Amino acid sequence: MPQALVLQSDFGHADGAVSAMYGVALGVSPALRICDLTHEIPQYDIWEASYRLIQTVGYWPEGTVFVSVVDPGVGSARRSIVAKTSNGRYIVTPDNGTLTHVKRMIGIDEVRTIDETVNRLAGSSESYTFYGRDVYVYTGARLAAGIIDFAGVGPTVDVESIVELPIIESSFDGDCVNGTIDVLDVRFGSLWTNIPKTEFDRLGISYGQRVEVTIENGTRMLYKNFLTFARSFADVYVGEPLVYVNSLDCMAVAINQGSFAAAYGIGTGVNWKITLRKAPRLVYE
Amino acid sequence: MPQALVLQSDFGHADGAVSAMYGVALGVSPALRICDLTHEIPQYDIWEASYRLIQTVGYWPEGTVFVSVVDPGVGSARRSIVAKTSNGRYIVTPDNGTLTHVKRMIGIDEVRTIDETVNRLAGSSESYTFYGRDVYVYTGARLAAGIIDFAGVGPTVDVESIVELPIIESSFDGDCVNGTIDVLDVRFGSLWTNIPKTEFDRLGISYGQRVEVTIENGTRMLYKNFLTFARSFADVYVGEPLVYVNSLDCMAVAINQGSFAAAYGIGTGVNWKITLRKAPRLVYE
Amino acid sequence: MPQALVLQSDFGHADGAVSAMYGVALGVSPALRICDLTHEIPQYDIWEASYRLIQTVGYWPEGTVFVSVVDPGVGSARRSIVAKTSNGRYIVTPDNGTLTHVKRMIGIDEVRTIDETVNRLAGSSESYTFYGRDVYVYTGARLAAGIIDFAGVGPTVDVESIVELPIIESSFDGDCVNGTIDVLDVRFGSLWTNIPKTEFDRLGISYGQRVEVTIENGTRMLYKNFLTFARSFADVYVGEPLVYVNSLDCMAVAINQGSFAAAYGIGTGVNWKITLRKAPRLVYE
Repeated sequence: MPQALVLQSDFGHADGAVSAMYGVALGVSPALRICDLTHEIPQYDIWEASYRLIQTVGYWPEGTVFVSVVDPGVGSARRSIVAKTSNGRYIVTPDNGTLTHVKRMIGIDEVRTIDETVNRLAGSSESYTFYGRDVYVYTGARLAAGIIDFAGVGPTVDVESIVELPIIESSFDGDCVNGTIDVLDVRFGSLWTNIPKTEFDRLGISYGQRVEVTIENGTRMLYKNFLTFARSFADVYVGEPLVYVNSLDCMAVAINQGSFAAAYGIGTGVNWKITLRKAPRLVYE
Repeated sequence: MPQALVLQSDFGHADGAVSAMYGVALGVSPALRICDLTHEIPQYDIWEASYRLIQTVGYWPEGTVFVSVVDPGVGSARRSIVAKTSNGRYIVTPDNGTLTHVKRMIGIDEVRTIDETVNRLAGSSESYTFYGRDVYVYTGARLAAGIIDFAGVGPTVDVESIVELPIIESSFDGDCVNGTIDVLDVRFGSLWTNIPKTEFDRLGISYGQRVEVTIENGTRMLYKNFLTFARSFADVYVGEPLVYVNSLDCMAVAINQGSFAAAYGIGTGVNWKITLRKAPRLVYE
Repeated sequence: MPQALVLQSDFGHADGAVSAMYGVALGVSPALRICDLTHEIPQYDIWEASYRLIQTVGYWPEGTVFVSVVDPGVGSARRSIVAKTSNGRYIVTPDNGTLTHVKRMIGIDEVRTIDETVNRLAGSSESYTFYGRDVYVYTGARLAAGIIDFAGVGPTVDVESIVELPIIESSFDGDCVNGTIDVLDVRFGSLWTNIPKTEFDRLGISYGQRVEVTIENGTRMLYKNFLTFARSFADVYVGEPLVYVNSLDCMAVAINQGSFAAAYGIGTGVNWKITLRKAPRLVYE
């Protein structure tokens, strides 16, 4: 049975680009199972592509082949690679930082560059702008269908040679954990931080207790307040903000049935700093 | 052969949430057929989730398993249930009103609560915010794949005990049929009412004749005019409004190649009342 | 093994329309492979439906059955047809111009009208507004599953009788190639023209040389500048405009990591004219 082939890109669904990739994959093997991760990565946003992979890779069966095409350097000398992760999934991608989170949080066992003399759609045209269709999905489909094995991708390269985006780790200073806002839960406007629950646990805050949350963006403070640490949204009122553990076991901040990001104009990236500490006892005199 | 597994949510496609659900389902059984109903239900909009189910359930083969995750109460004490409809489909959902239209218009034969000691993804984390992935799609996949039968979901509960949203029935007063605007045909801006064609037929209006349409929202009248009762959009001019029978055999109002909802600022819900009557004869003197 | 069934429409994904089509197709044959081209064709935009077909049809395996439902005349006397292309794909569509580009650029061998006495979903209701579900996808599914062969669709009609939209060809006048802006690469804001690379080659411009680009919309000139003819986006700076060969082997204009269409307010259609010529030598005196 072929492995699942899972596609990610910044192409959107409005034109035929994703569909052409599906067609090429089915041309490789009509028995392939093809699914999507997302095609709504903001254009050229390698960071978010990397993040969406770490959010999902582990939930797919071992052997699944991911193809991620967020490729601002398409046509440049950037390498085209396939990584084998330490938990046995494959990721086909330009070597541009897309593997940053997977390498750090799951681990990568082996990386190969794609030998385009073998792994390129026959008759792909004079166009140099659609490697996703002509090389990446074609190679991914051959790998998922078992037409080539991992060695058939091309020569190995040093795992440590692949491009990684800078990541700032969360830190604990005795009173506070400091982190950054990595990404938004786009539709619900929640903030997902880089602070693991294990780090947060060092603050000794139990469910139902309050957390002091401070958010700064390098130029100014945008938010400071005391929030309930809730097991889930249902533990607070509608419209009330909360701190919770997201589906990646990291700390997140939200408004129940509202958008925290929209309410306070919060963005993402290494300049968006968040600090969590145990809320003080409030004494009215 | 496994049954189809059809997913609905308010997650959108911008992040990895839907894809993680697909991965979990394929981990249950790689042979599963997984499709989408929609993932663009407005956030927390249980009414629309209920409506989209009634719009589609009957068009899928008997035995199809639907998983609907619009779950503002995630993590609360709300029950997690699976309903068997009177026409032999299964719906996995939080018990929050999502089954309102299906129960009323198709009927529900049996309801079971999900026994999470059995039907929960192994190793699902300390996160309490993604039941869709950890419980609902996992249970739905097991049911669709035949790993469990319906009894394997968990204990039965009284069908009459499930949560239902208030529904107002259309009524006929001798001259007029009165109803509400249930939902918009989002992309085309048409109004879908709760008035069945069988009720409308009591007005004795034939195709090509005119209907007086009045729309009020509790505070004021927004629209009153005479419209053609058309078999299809092609029966009126481009830009002309019409009354027609929608794909659920209920009465609908639209502008041919325009958006009626946008043109007159029409919304949906029990406060949005619509009245249809036979248009008067116009006599110029 | 059944052929792939590929769906296109202007329905969007917000409601249950596409899902109902999937359900009907699986009801015809549970073994069918169903995929999407796109469902985000702008409402009623037959031109774009035609264009997205030419963009993708050739990348799907021979025998693939496409169903395209952009149908402003639904319910009118417009014919419902299935075309067999010269490269062996099938397209189910209303006869309204959707086949314009495919007929011209791939060729159509045979056209049949759908015999609705045979090829219509049993029990499809009094609704005349959803041919996509009740006739088109039902017929396409039967054809893809091999339940009917092409002759089973219905009687043949003259290929030359089908509706075609007006197309303006690009032209070469010795110094310039003149063309129109056919469509946008929606997400990236690039302009796709009707000028084939073979026509552009007559200007004798090599990669790295500069092209004079002029864009007019009938009433005024919107853009005139000298752009690099680049093999790919990576050959120019971020923010720099370029001329390149798109994935259809036609000439295109873009801004690297920006939106050309948004920057200069460019639209599409036969009134949007673009002229390419070899840039003059610049002499500073």
